[in-house]
Amino acid sequence: MLNAEIIAVGSEMLTPTRVDTNSLWLTEQLNAIGIEVKLKIVVGDDEARLEETVRDALKRSEVIIATGGLGPTEDDITRKIFSRVLGRRLQLHDATLDRIRKRFAARGYQMPEINARQALVPEGAQLLENERGTAPGLLMTEKNCTVVLLPGPPRELKPMFTSQVLPLLARRAGGTIIRRRRIGTFGLTESGVDEIAAPVYARLTNPSTTILADRGIIELHLAARASSEAEAERMLDDLSGRLEEALGHHVFSTRGETLEEVIAEWLRFRNYTIAVAESCTGGLLAGRITDVPGSSDYFLAGVVAYANEAKTELLGVPAELIAAHGAVSAEVAEAMAEGVRRRAGTTIGVAVTGIAGPDGGTEEKPVGLVYIGFANEVAVESRRFLFPSGDRYLIRQFSINAALNMVRRRLQ
Amino acid sequence: MLNAEIIAVGSEMLTPTRVDTNSLWLTEQLNAIGIEVKLKIVVGDDEARLEETVRDALKRSEVIIATGGLGPTEDDITRKIFSRVLGRRLQLHDATLDRIRKRFAARGYQMPEINARQALVPEGAQLLENERGTAPGLLMTEKNCTVVLLPGPPRELKPMFTSQVLPLLARRAGGTIIRRRRIGTFGLTESGVDEIAAPVYARLTNPSTTILADRGIIELHLAARASSEAEAERMLDDLSGRLEEALGHHVFSTRGETLEEVIAEWLRFRNYTIAVAESCTGGLLAGRITDVPGSSDYFLAGVVAYANEAKTELLGVPAELIAAHGAVSAEVAEAMAEGVRRRAGTTIGVAVTGIAGPDGGTEEKPVGLVYIGFANEVAVESRRFLFPSGDRYLIRQFSINAALNMVRRRLQ
Repeated sequence: MLNAEIIAVGSEMLTPTRVDTNSLWLTEQLNAIGIEVKLKIVVGDDEARLEETVRDALKRSEVIIATGGLGPTEDDITRKIFSRVLGRRLQLHDATLDRIRKRFAARGYQMPEINARQALVPEGAQLLENERGTAPGLLMTEKNCTVVLLPGPPRELKPMFTSQVLPLLARRAGGTIIRRRRIGTFGLTESGVDEIAAPVYARLTNPSTTILADRGIIELHLAARASSEAEAERMLDDLSGRLEEALGHHVFSTRGETLEEVIAEWLRFRNYTIAVAESCTGGLLAGRITDVPGSSDYFLAGVVAYANEAKTELLGVPAELIAAHGAVSAEVAEAMAEGVRRRAGTTIGVAVTGIAGPDGGTEEKPVGLVYIGFANEVAVESRRFLFPSGDRYLIRQFSINAALNMVRRRLQ
Repeated sequence: MLNAEIIAVGSEMLTPTRVDTNSLWLTEQLNAIGIEVKLKIVVGDDEARLEETVRDALKRSEVIIATGGLGPTEDDITRKIFSRVLGRRLQLHDATLDRIRKRFAARGYQMPEINARQALVPEGAQLLENERGTAPGLLMTEKNCTVVLLPGPPRELKPMFTSQVLPLLARRAGGTIIRRRRIGTFGLTESGVDEIAAPVYARLTNPSTTILADRGIIELHLAARASSEAEAERMLDDLSGRLEEALGHHVFSTRGETLEEVIAEWLRFRNYTIAVAESCTGGLLAGRITDVPGSSDYFLAGVVAYANEAKTELLGVPAELIAAHGAVSAEVAEAMAEGVRRRAGTTIGVAVTGIAGPDGGTEEKPVGLVYIGFANEVAVESRRFLFPSGDRYLIRQFSINAALNMVRRRLQ
């Protein structure tokens, strides 16, 4: 079993507010291919400290992964220190410099000269393409140690690692293939899912199953170890099938698709269009639906009606209705859904109205109370939810997922 | 200035799901008394690794704080390894053993014999009382290094540290303190900010300055060390003032406030209301504005007009205008801003229309082209942006920040 060490570089990672989340994700990836993380280190933009840390790491670890410090500024020292310790001269890599220049040019900027630093490559190092940023990653082999330098931003680090580093490390780790699958569920608590799923997966160590909860969505992560992809897939098909059967309609995806992606498939399949009306979610529901590329094919419009006047003016919700039942009510949720459907001329209208807090809660309408309205050609309906109060962000996220799930259920 | 090192002990801290939050809290406490955390390490229940880590720590750090691994079980090795490396015999401390026994008895239990291990104390070590658990903490002075062993559970660690460790370290630190400040800028690249700011901060080690980029927002993190809060604040005021002067209108906050928080202050101050019309950002702009609690005071409505019909129906944008200039144009951006302002009856209307991709780009209107429209009682205007293409998420995020920043500029 190979042992790895993760080094996070950057003084900001030594402040009271910043957590090194990259190492968590990297640990999961490495464990999956049978590499154990034995040590995690956070060191600042401090040349002496980093140099010492790297020297020690080379003595004790077979895989060293450093994150951050590849930026263009003076305090980005990772590239420099690693090449110093490894005794490799830094050489300007023209193709990379050219790529960085083009990246700036594409935005109508001229590349500041200091960015040239990001095109410096240690002798014999392998370049790791960065699709989402200027800093390329670097991979070097020193004796029996694999050294990987990755950019700090997770959005740049993750695709780079999975596509260009993981396969290579997996080979070195010795051939066993790991295949993963994610089953997404909504409508049950984490323990609720576990109660149903545990009898199915409990005695199984391969595939392994872990349960993760995120803003109302409970995911089952399956990982199968096998000597071939086909074999791993067979194992996953079998377990996944039995879990889906046990969890029934709570399962919204079996291949890691998001709720908005599942809805997208159904809307395209049925050739439907959708519009949303939001109050407490403030536009984030529309934002989630339009996260999906090509969503303009079925998403026509959204209205964020925060003020009551806006509900009336933009959605045609009768002022009397709001006066009679309050803005947070089944009646208004349904009127909003029907209103946005009619105004936008879509097949489906969905609406969210609720109290995200921290203020605005009352005895009979507490913070966390949310109504989801749904309208199509034939019917208008609504559902009432009471989400754990005291967290504006979570209440908004729960509401979005609840609304997306309601649409999903109606479409299936 | 004393430098410290924090060592978190425990294999569970090396899993993909556990974050070492103790070190964040400890860093804040230590910074406040002028002790700088130079290194953070997470090591598992691995005797060889921990022993090596402790030996290295003693060479480089003046303060070593280890958390966790003081429990009663076999894999709680912190006490054992530190006493081994420091060459101090472990002796059974009767008073402590007695206290632990009583603690169990008080809850009607008999003390399991393995808990006696928690009463073992290295020669010459100072005991740190644990009001909330069985494991006492330990404090030892080795040459010029202060070694502190704390229990892992935050509710045990925190009171123990503040009441029994902090005062002692504060005396040793000789009263220096650290104050931090964050300056937010928009409109320049990371290297662009550095080119302007470096001449101001480069030669300065106190306050120290680091630059961080996030979705178009470039932050400067300042940290000042001084003998008093007042002095540190003066140093920060001075550097911050000169940086603000150099960076001019690009600076949107000097106390770490977000763009939406800054706008909130200005809207309240001017007693203005705002409405937004979005195309490519799909509701996320409204979502950002409504992230701020109490935003319902000034945010009245938002419209996500994805389809051209929606732009006409919901915002009153003339169909001919869209036909003549295209949905992604200065003319339509301005009409959207004015339209939503009129429909929602607000002081300000802001609009975003652009091409987030991956598809929909053309020769003269490429992916990444975004127009921001702004309307108030007196004027309607728009600005054109070209963001790095090929990343839908980033283009949307850049657009949101650009729109928020445009509103900020007009309000100031």
